[in-house]
Order: sequence, then structure tokens, then C-alpha cells
Amino acid sequence: VVDHLHSRRPAILDGFFSFLRLPSISTDPSYRADIRRCANWLVAEMARIGFDNCRTIETDGHPVVYGDWLHAGPNRPTVLVYAHYDVQPVDPLELWETPPFDPTLRDGRLYARGVADDKAGVWGNLMVLESIFAVDGQLPVNVKLIFEGEEESGSPNMAPFVAAHRDLLAADVVYLCDGPFSAERPTMAYALRGIVGARVTVSGPDHDLHSGAFGGAVENPIHVVSEIIASFHDQAGRVTIPGFQDRVRALDKEELDQMAAQWVAAAPEWHQASGTKHTWGDSVASIPERVTALPTLDVNGIWGGYQGPGLKTIIPARAGFAATMRLVADQDPREIADLFRAHVLSFASPTAAVDVTIVATGWPATVDRNDPAIEAAQQGLEAVLGKRAQLIRGGGSVPIAGMFQHELGAPLVPAGIGPGDNVHAPNEYLELEPFFQALDVVAHFYYNLAAAGA
Amino acid sequence: VVDHLHSRRPAILDGFFSFLRLPSISTDPSYRADIRRCANWLVAEMARIGFDNCRTIETDGHPVVYGDWLHAGPNRPTVLVYAHYDVQPVDPLELWETPPFDPTLRDGRLYARGVADDKAGVWGNLMVLESIFAVDGQLPVNVKLIFEGEEESGSPNMAPFVAAHRDLLAADVVYLCDGPFSAERPTMAYALRGIVGARVTVSGPDHDLHSGAFGGAVENPIHVVSEIIASFHDQAGRVTIPGFQDRVRALDKEELDQMAAQWVAAAPEWHQASGTKHTWGDSVASIPERVTALPTLDVNGIWGGYQGPGLKTIIPARAGFAATMRLVADQDPREIADLFRAHVLSFASPTAAVDVTIVATGWPATVDRNDPAIEAAQQGLEAVLGKRAQLIRGGGSVPIAGMFQHELGAPLVPAGIGPGDNVHAPNEYLELEPFFQALDVVAHFYYNLAAAGA
Repeated sequence: VVDHLHSRRPAILDGFFSFLRLPSISTDPSYRADIRRCANWLVAEMARIGFDNCRTIETDGHPVVYGDWLHAGPNRPTVLVYAHYDVQPVDPLELWETPPFDPTLRDGRLYARGVADDKAGVWGNLMVLESIFAVDGQLPVNVKLIFEGEEESGSPNMAPFVAAHRDLLAADVVYLCDGPFSAERPTMAYALRGIVGARVTVSGPDHDLHSGAFGGAVENPIHVVSEIIASFHDQAGRVTIPGFQDRVRALDKEELDQMAAQWVAAAPEWHQASGTKHTWGDSVASIPERVTALPTLDVNGIWGGYQGPGLKTIIPARAGFAATMRLVADQDPREIADLFRAHVLSFASPTAAVDVTIVATGWPATVDRNDPAIEAAQQGLEAVLGKRAQLIRGGGSVPIAGMFQHELGAPLVPAGIGPGDNVHAPNEYLELEPFFQALDVVAHFYYNLAAAGA
Repeated sequence: VVDHLHSRRPAILDGFFSFLRLPSISTDPSYRADIRRCANWLVAEMARIGFDNCRTIETDGHPVVYGDWLHAGPNRPTVLVYAHYDVQPVDPLELWETPPFDPTLRDGRLYARGVADDKAGVWGNLMVLESIFAVDGQLPVNVKLIFEGEEESGSPNMAPFVAAHRDLLAADVVYLCDGPFSAERPTMAYALRGIVGARVTVSGPDHDLHSGAFGGAVENPIHVVSEIIASFHDQAGRVTIPGFQDRVRALDKEELDQMAAQWVAAAPEWHQASGTKHTWGDSVASIPERVTALPTLDVNGIWGGYQGPGLKTIIPARAGFAATMRLVADQDPREIADLFRAHVLSFASPTAAVDVTIVATGWPATVDRNDPAIEAAQQGLEAVLGKRAQLIRGGGSVPIAGMFQHELGAPLVPAGIGPGDNVHAPNEYLELEPFFQALDVVAHFYYNLAAAGA
């Protein structure tokens, strides 16, 4: 199969060029027809390659593309392959050296919008699976393909879609193919944090008041907002919202040791990027634990009253803030949202109305590092690159990961195949040589999954 | 003298019209020459009326106008009369029914920019003193006139001016003639609060950070700002900055009783204007005490991080707030500024730099309600209107009042003679009949001061 993939490189690029010419920008309504044209083009390609049930599935936004091949037999695992076919906007257009939807090869790089994020994930899997079909006449595992059309718009319809299609998407392994790939230093995230985002408004008097005439007798909403925020952490830096820490899963010694060992290499870059010489919360846990394995709460923005230069002597009618919490297993974002809301609302009083709006929730996702699916991916890397990926916890949140894990209960393999850069900027590109290496890894991965029996 | 004033009403208006035609807008640099023309016009008028030493005195901004008449003898008190000859800007010009510098009589009202605030104070005193000269050939008290040209620009040069001219301005009574006048319900403030205004910035990392990658390990400046603000008050609503309350002068029972009695009539309007059904800090003291006789601290504005809709998951590099404190006797604004600064800076740490900038300071001003100067004004009202003024504490701050009291140590009589409305808005007007009554009161006031011997 690997030989077949190598021999087909020109054909792989040919089809990729056609795919890349379809301007599937999901955030801009004027590309609505282009998105659908792109989805239909994929449906045709998947059918040509040999998938069944190929179709677009409607959502409240852009369609999801689906296809499957489920003839590997019941003793072979079923893999759900996720990638997304929509792309970021292209502005500022004048900074592109070549047009974003006119794919161009330069110095071993392929330039085009979406080439790395994430058309590489969509096309790469289709090409690997086409080669397997060509060589074996069948696939070693059952495969369900799902390509999203709204990832770059924040996946507003993905949670209801996954919940509504739990049977259709049921799988033994979820392969999340979105993100970069490094042949030099491969990494794989076995844990991603969940998220709860909230906006809070405190309302006092029904209009701004003169602080010289009402100060001391009308409560100031900025003071209340400050009391709320000051109550979120203890002096050490732990989040103190009642119940917030109850479901946090402790790390075992082996994982802590591995984390500490990895940190030795990662620390200089992290400290460099942190913009400060002095860390905070050091008595709580090590830095890598705090930024990946423990939950956090940060206020991301605050507002209220007069923000211009000088002074304006008012008590403002309103003040507010936006905050995000990062969650770890086994925290439930719905429960954390409720705990946050209850805690913040406990500051409400006759003199200060408090409103809490939850604007985002996402489940944390955590896979056993020894899961056979992870091992299948590791052995694929080893076969092609002669090295295994460093297994890491990610501090950020990939809502789709938690969503799949929560709804489908299957282990995740988050492993992108988009080596390149400028993924949300002008002149996005894909490094071709490591991309082709990644395809070889993916081919091994599918066979390894079959061997593991998952 | 009162008869003389009445007979001269047409002449008083004639001169007033000339004064009002001079567009003495102090904030707009393009009126710089007009301001000076206005100052020179006043110097000429004062000299014509009979004052000595009439001249403009330079400041770093617009000139102060000065003149005196000090021939009443050493056993007569010296009165420093303060008013200001500059006016507010006029925009939006299109909302004026008649041009702002083309004074117009309509329905017993005189319309013009500055007619009530505060050219009435300047011109009214000159006219009263001119009549006294005409009738008696001399004044009953020694008089120093000082007319400011930057009151509507926040008096940026007044504090250094007063400090530098302490001897020139030395007086037994300071008569602050700026503000409204009511013949129906006259009031006089015997206390005004001081002010300290400050801006605070908390700086953390040198750029905004991704909260998913650095939260929990880099301190969030918004959290620090909130802790600072939350520390300003206790649960009851008292300001808890160490030392802040030390010099607060307790009210005697008589004053508390008077305040409570006055509040019965004032309360409905205050509650109506407060924009809320529920007051705050009620266990500290009564509402009128809290808003006039006790010091307060209010945060007037707060900012930091992302203030748009939705979420942006950052730890901001910076956050800040602006706050004002209202001071009462015997609080010293320099000391309070130091206490505030020291308290806020106590939150600085290696992970959070804190910067405090004091942007405003003003002394509180308090006069004994039984001071002979107050009584002289009261008897003037009684003679003309048949009623005395309600003596009140003002919750706001008139920096010039505290400045004069602090530098000159003389009792203040804050009593405006500008009955009217729209003083900082289009169509500013002066009610002529109560204005002329106010001139009669002022005439009595000067004679009463002489009789009291101050």
C-alpha cells in the first residue's frame, strides 16, 4: 500500500488541486454555494473510491459529508474518521503571494487556503483508503467518514448533530484528523481540556449616577463584580467555587513522572512565550500539571463605567465580565456551568442584580495512554519514521473531541496530517514531503488497528 | 442702594449684554484671544467703577482678573469675592434658539452662553458694588475681586495661583459667587467634600496570552484588580483602607437632628433620582450622612482584556480602573492619596506590577454654620425674601472652595446668584426677576458683613 501511495503521488496532487480550488469558506455567507459544491464534490469522490451511503447530511448550517464501508467483518473494529472540509477566510487578500484558491507548488511546499487546515486531513485519508482498496480490494477495518463544513465557524451545529446521529456515528475508535504533523518530533495529545465560557452582568441603578450625590448609598456594580471575581481563587491560586474540584481525577505517579520528564525540554519555550519572568500558583502543582491536567478559571475581559482618560465621577448602572474555565476529567461542563452560575448568583442582592449567561460548554477528552488505538498510531509512526510520538496533555480545548468521547464513548486518536504553517493567515502552506510520510503512517495505522482488534 | 439698583436695571442689562457678547470659552484654544479680550474688558469696567490695582494676572493658562478696594479701614473685614468669567463651549450650536453670544430677552429670561454660569456672578457683584459706590461714595467692607478664566476647564492653574498669591488674596471672608439661586427655596452649603481621583493599572505578562496555555501559571491582572477593589470596603459598606477614617470629624447631635429634619423633605427627590429601590450601606449611617458627611470611595470605571461579544480566551497583559474618593473634614487629600497609593501598591507582587496615578486632589471645605459671615448672608436673604436659606452639606466637590479654605484659612460663603437653567447645555438662560432679587441680597450681605465686623 505504501508503494502504491508513493507511485500515485502525482495523481494524489492532481485531485488535491481540484479540491483546493473549491473556496469552501464557512464563515462568509457569500460562499454558501461554494461550500455545498465542495461537499457534493467530496460525496462523488468518496463514491468513486468505493464508499457506501455517501451523502451530505443537512444541519442548521453547512452540510456534513458522510460515507462508510462496513464490510471488514464484526471482529474488526469500526473507525470513525473526522476531518473538516471548510476553510478560514482569506483576507487580507493582498498579502497572498499567489491566489489562495489557485494552489501553487514552490520549494516543496503547496500553497493554498485550507491546504494544511484541514483539507490535508480529508484528502489524505481518502487517498490512503483509495490505495488500500486498490491493493487489497477491501479495507482492514470498518470505516465511517465524517467531514464537517463548519469547524472554522466554531462548529455551532456539531453537538446537536452528533447527539442526533449517535447510532450512525457509533465506532470503536474515533480518529480526529485535524492539526499539524511533525516528522521530526511527532506528538499526540491523549488529553484535551473541556471548557465552560460565561458572561456575567451586574446591574445596579437604572442609569449612571453622580458618585458625589449617591456614593455610599447606592451599591456600585463594579464593586460587586470585583467581589465576585476575587472569590474565584484562594491565595494559592486554586479555584474555590464550591464543588468545582470534586470530580478532578488525580494523576498517577507514572504520568506525573512522564510529565516532569517532558517538561525539561518544553519549559524554555513555554517560559519564553509566557511574557513574564514569574509564574503564579506554584504551590498548587507543577506548571505542566497546572496548564494541562488541572482545571482553571480565567476572567478574559472586564468592563464597566467610564473607560476614557481622566476622571468621570459616576456610579455606573452596569458592569460585567467574561470568563472561561478549562475542565479536566471527570468534570462535566453542564455541572461546572451550574456550579459557576450558582456561585456567581449568590452575590445577587436587592441592590445588585446578577445575570449569568453560559456561552460555551465543551467536554474534556482523555484517553488511556495505553489504549490499543494509541498504540496502533504509535507503531505506524515507528514503522515510517523510526520514532514514536511524545504523548502529551493539551491545555487547550477541542470541543469536537470531548463531544465525540462523551456521546460515543470511544477512545480518541487525535493525530493531524497537516505539516505546514500560516493556517489562519495569508500564504497557508503544506510541506509535501512530511505530508506524504504522514500518509504512509495513516496506512500503517489502519492495518495496525485491525491487528489490535481494538 | 437697593433703590439705586432697581433704578439702574436697564443700565445693568446694557453692560451685561456687552459682557455676554464676548465669547470667553476657556476649553477651546481658538477662543484664546476672546478670553483675553474679555479679561481686559473686565479690568476696564472694574477701574471705571472705582477699584484699585485692576489688572490681569498671568497663569500657565488664561489670565486671572484682579482688583481691590481696601479703604474701609482696618476694623472692617476684607472680603475676597470669587467668580469666573469663562464659559462652557456652545456645541451643539444648532440646538440654540438664538445665537449663544447674541444675548436675547424672552419671557423674562435672558438667553446667552454663560449668563447664569457664571457671568451673573461676575457682573452682579460689579453692579452691586457700583451702586454702593454711587450711593455711599465708598464700600462698607474691604473688597478683593478675583475672577477666574479657567473654571470650565477644571481650574488647572488655580491651586498654584492661590498658593503663590496667598498674601494678595488674604481675606477674612471668602465669598464664592458661582452657582444657582432660588428665591423660592434658598439653600447655602456650609460644607463641601474634598476629592482624590486616581487611576490604577495592573500589568502582568508583556502581551496577551492564551488562557488555555498559561492559565493557572501566569497571574491574571483582572483577578488582581478585582482583589484590590474588593478590599476597599467591608461588608457594611465602610471604606477600609488603613487610616482612611482616622481624621473624619464626627457630627454633633444638633447637626444630625437638623440633617434628619431636612431629609424628610429631600428624600423623595433623592430616591426618585437614585435609579434604584434599594439603598446600600444602611447600617453605616443615615443616607444624608453617607452622601454628604462621610467619606466614600467609588470605582468609576474598570477595563481589561476582551470587551467584545462572545468569548476570547486570553489572559490580558493589563487591566485597570479609575476611582474617586470624597473627603470630609478633617481629611487631607495628600494624606488620603498616600494611604490609597500605599494600600493599592500592597497588592503588587513579582507576578503583578501595580501603578497608581493620582489625577485629582481637592480639599474638603467646612464652615461653622454659626459663623458671622453665614449669618450676614442669611440676614440678607431674610431682608429681601423674608426667609433664610436652608443650610446644607453638599455631597459634591468644589475644589476652589477647599483650595481657598486650606490656603487662606478664612470662612467661606458659597452663594451663587445665577437663577436659571441649561448651564452646560444649549439655550442657557437666567431668570431676570430672581437675579435682580439676588443683587438686593448681595447688597445687604456686604453691609451685614460690615456690621458683623467679621
